[in-house]
Amino acid sequence: MDAAEFRQRGKEMVDTVADYLENIQKRPVFPSVQPGYIRELVPESAPETAESWEDLFGDIERVVMPGVTHWHHPQFHAYFPTANSYAALCADMLSDAIGCIGFSWASSPACTELEMVMMDWLGKMLDLPQEFLFCSGGKGGGVIQGTASEATLVALLAARNQTIHREKEANPALTEADIMARMVGYCSDQAHSSVERAGLLGAVKIVKLSSDRKQSLRGETLAQAVQKDKEKGLIPFFVCGTLGTTPSCAFDSIEELGAVCNLEKIWLHIDAAYAGSAFICPEFRYLLSGVQFADSFNFNPHKWLRVTFDCSAMWIKDSSKLVDAFNVDPLYLKHDNQGKVPDYRHWQIPLGRRFRSLKLWFVLRLHGIKGLQEYIRQHVKLAHEFEALVLADERFEIVAEVVLGLVCFRLKGANDINEQLLQRINQDGRIHLVPSKIGNTYFLRFAVCAPYAESKDVQFAWTVLTELATELLKEKK
Amino acid sequence: MDAAEFRQRGKEMVDTVADYLENIQKRPVFPSVQPGYIRELVPESAPETAESWEDLFGDIERVVMPGVTHWHHPQFHAYFPTANSYAALCADMLSDAIGCIGFSWASSPACTELEMVMMDWLGKMLDLPQEFLFCSGGKGGGVIQGTASEATLVALLAARNQTIHREKEANPALTEADIMARMVGYCSDQAHSSVERAGLLGAVKIVKLSSDRKQSLRGETLAQAVQKDKEKGLIPFFVCGTLGTTPSCAFDSIEELGAVCNLEKIWLHIDAAYAGSAFICPEFRYLLSGVQFADSFNFNPHKWLRVTFDCSAMWIKDSSKLVDAFNVDPLYLKHDNQGKVPDYRHWQIPLGRRFRSLKLWFVLRLHGIKGLQEYIRQHVKLAHEFEALVLADERFEIVAEVVLGLVCFRLKGANDINEQLLQRINQDGRIHLVPSKIGNTYFLRFAVCAPYAESKDVQFAWTVLTELATELLKEKK
Repeated sequence: MDAAEFRQRGKEMVDTVADYLENIQKRPVFPSVQPGYIRELVPESAPETAESWEDLFGDIERVVMPGVTHWHHPQFHAYFPTANSYAALCADMLSDAIGCIGFSWASSPACTELEMVMMDWLGKMLDLPQEFLFCSGGKGGGVIQGTASEATLVALLAARNQTIHREKEANPALTEADIMARMVGYCSDQAHSSVERAGLLGAVKIVKLSSDRKQSLRGETLAQAVQKDKEKGLIPFFVCGTLGTTPSCAFDSIEELGAVCNLEKIWLHIDAAYAGSAFICPEFRYLLSGVQFADSFNFNPHKWLRVTFDCSAMWIKDSSKLVDAFNVDPLYLKHDNQGKVPDYRHWQIPLGRRFRSLKLWFVLRLHGIKGLQEYIRQHVKLAHEFEALVLADERFEIVAEVVLGLVCFRLKGANDINEQLLQRINQDGRIHLVPSKIGNTYFLRFAVCAPYAESKDVQFAWTVLTELATELLKEKK
Repeated sequence: MDAAEFRQRGKEMVDTVADYLENIQKRPVFPSVQPGYIRELVPESAPETAESWEDLFGDIERVVMPGVTHWHHPQFHAYFPTANSYAALCADMLSDAIGCIGFSWASSPACTELEMVMMDWLGKMLDLPQEFLFCSGGKGGGVIQGTASEATLVALLAARNQTIHREKEANPALTEADIMARMVGYCSDQAHSSVERAGLLGAVKIVKLSSDRKQSLRGETLAQAVQKDKEKGLIPFFVCGTLGTTPSCAFDSIEELGAVCNLEKIWLHIDAAYAGSAFICPEFRYLLSGVQFADSFNFNPHKWLRVTFDCSAMWIKDSSKLVDAFNVDPLYLKHDNQGKVPDYRHWQIPLGRRFRSLKLWFVLRLHGIKGLQEYIRQHVKLAHEFEALVLADERFEIVAEVVLGLVCFRLKGANDINEQLLQRINQDGRIHLVPSKIGNTYFLRFAVCAPYAESKDVQFAWTVLTELATELLKEKK
């Protein structure tokens, strides 16, 4: 395809994209395909000679679309949202065309520089403490990671490195292995699976601590665990506090955890993957209270801030701790301005990186802070509308406080009836939900996800749900 | 921006992208900006209310472009290429619009299924052993990672896990820390910095072994190191062999390394990040000889196969070793078809993942195998053309055998004259190169990178180079 053909095909693709997103509600939200379906629809090998655009284009509907779970569908209420916007789509086209690899400042200065400024813009929108921002002139700053899981891993590895150095300084006879064997990190039993996984990857122990009745990890629980572990000779080194847990959108008490961490010199990382976007609204910022105690903070604009995946925003108070943790510096990556500006490759797991700050730039400018605040508030309002419907039906109960855009609910009674309800919902296919569990209580998660979510979608979901619940309960009698 | 506006702006962006790529040679390949330049051009905070498209659009040229290193510029000869094509740009638009997060099969079946088939297509194009392919029906298969650094890390972590299990089985009294402290991995002194970094991240020792006069790591060197380390009580567990090193595009002897690894039960990972694309041409496939010994193999279609970053193709013979290494499985990610199909989240570091196989699908179909082979051959031919120019000028010398699209050369004599030459080249600004070093020999790397690279670009680069070299040598006299 040459430039002339791209001018035609690219524009057709713009229309295809607009058609897809404008008419997405006409498609089934969840596909009915079975494992292996694509293999039967496509050849076994790549073609020897180039195929025509027409042949390829037709296969989008024939091969791809039947197997897509439509995350932007108004009846998609599973997981958490993944963000989308036309502004971000335009930015990605530009980013893809420039196609620079921003591993160092010199490899494309604009890529590093716009990211620094965008991370400051975003940090100010959340009212993060100055120490996290580049504009403070200190050691703090932000970086775009691919995912919250990577941010958690990066934070854990920086904490691991800091602790090894500190312990070795105190006792030079210790080996790295001796120290690591005694290191212990903590998170709540509600934390995302990626925290536990970061421990596996980083070869350090992560202990899940009990959350309270509101699924919140409290300072007292942490303090006791730290005390006990220290008595056993262990070295507490890392805490991942969660703001907006995946099972039920619960909030750890960062204020309390932070006090313990600061006293015990433990690295505090905050994972606000989903909830973080809401902190651009002042009325939700109380949930962020205590962030001043954190060493690193992360949330995903690609979840709820109109920025397409991947764009996970991470801030760190002392970036030298990231850079020192795994700095390797070959000649072919050196440049004249090293030391004056961040070389973001030291801030992340991969070497290469795309020009992702363009997405933030386009979205923040084309939506404005107010536009994004309205968007968040609309989703929260719809969640409360759904909550009210649940509360008004005495067959159902709410499982966790509705704070943002997630409603956790269930049929009163045993788990198995709820498992059956979920199965029927997803078999029915008009709406899509996933379940979760807190302790032994199985429940359904209703997440407000669609970019143009409206009251009628919430009402529709409730109609489907109650219709299926009524049927199920009738059969059970 | 609504759908109607996107239909307009998106199409304008298509033209902007085509204009950019068609006229890229009119821009300076390397920017002249200084650190901090963007901060002076943009406001300190995000706008309260939405801005107009026109204001944003104008800032692409005012703010972004002056700071871009243009990787697709015909005079860009730094690092290695990063791929681009109109086919991939179209695919990315679609991928971005669908915007599914393919962490499990159920989260969007098409995302997993097309990736499986594309990895088989690609594996067949390289003539990889059947065991690496899904279609073999065994435990092997491919996955798209973000970068080669992540593939190396994933392989190292799987190897680490396998070794810990094996050692614990043999001696249950051993702790994980005991075993890890004795584990040792190897790579050549020419391996990419990300191998050393993977060791730092994974908290295991990586030893760099001496390469031979052709910068190739040989079996004998490895065998001796393994023997010595075993005598010291260490546990050799991992080797990363490189096909196409970053400093000089050298090739480890995989055949020899593989024999040692198989004998000693050491995980062999092959990093062919740059060179791997060339193996679609039968005449270069001899370099891949020995791949049957490998446990995992990786190359970057996003470097040299017209697929935009990021798309790093990794195959593994026994995928259960990846999955077992760091499997965590919360309820909200479970689905009915688990076990029948891969859940790719277990194959990678992050949880979330984009629909990247669309890029492979578009590129392989719209270019065809032959079209891509011609592309590779054209770049190799141009490298040899440049090599011939260097050889014909007695002031210069070739530093390493030219096998693919990289030419390593220098002015005969001391390093400092070459350092000065490079400085002048990049100050002059007409072409862009980066240096490298083998042992104490500093040299310049000329990589053929541009998608439409032609003979005249090679000739132009040589004209600039010799002009600057002549000036420099005159001054030195």
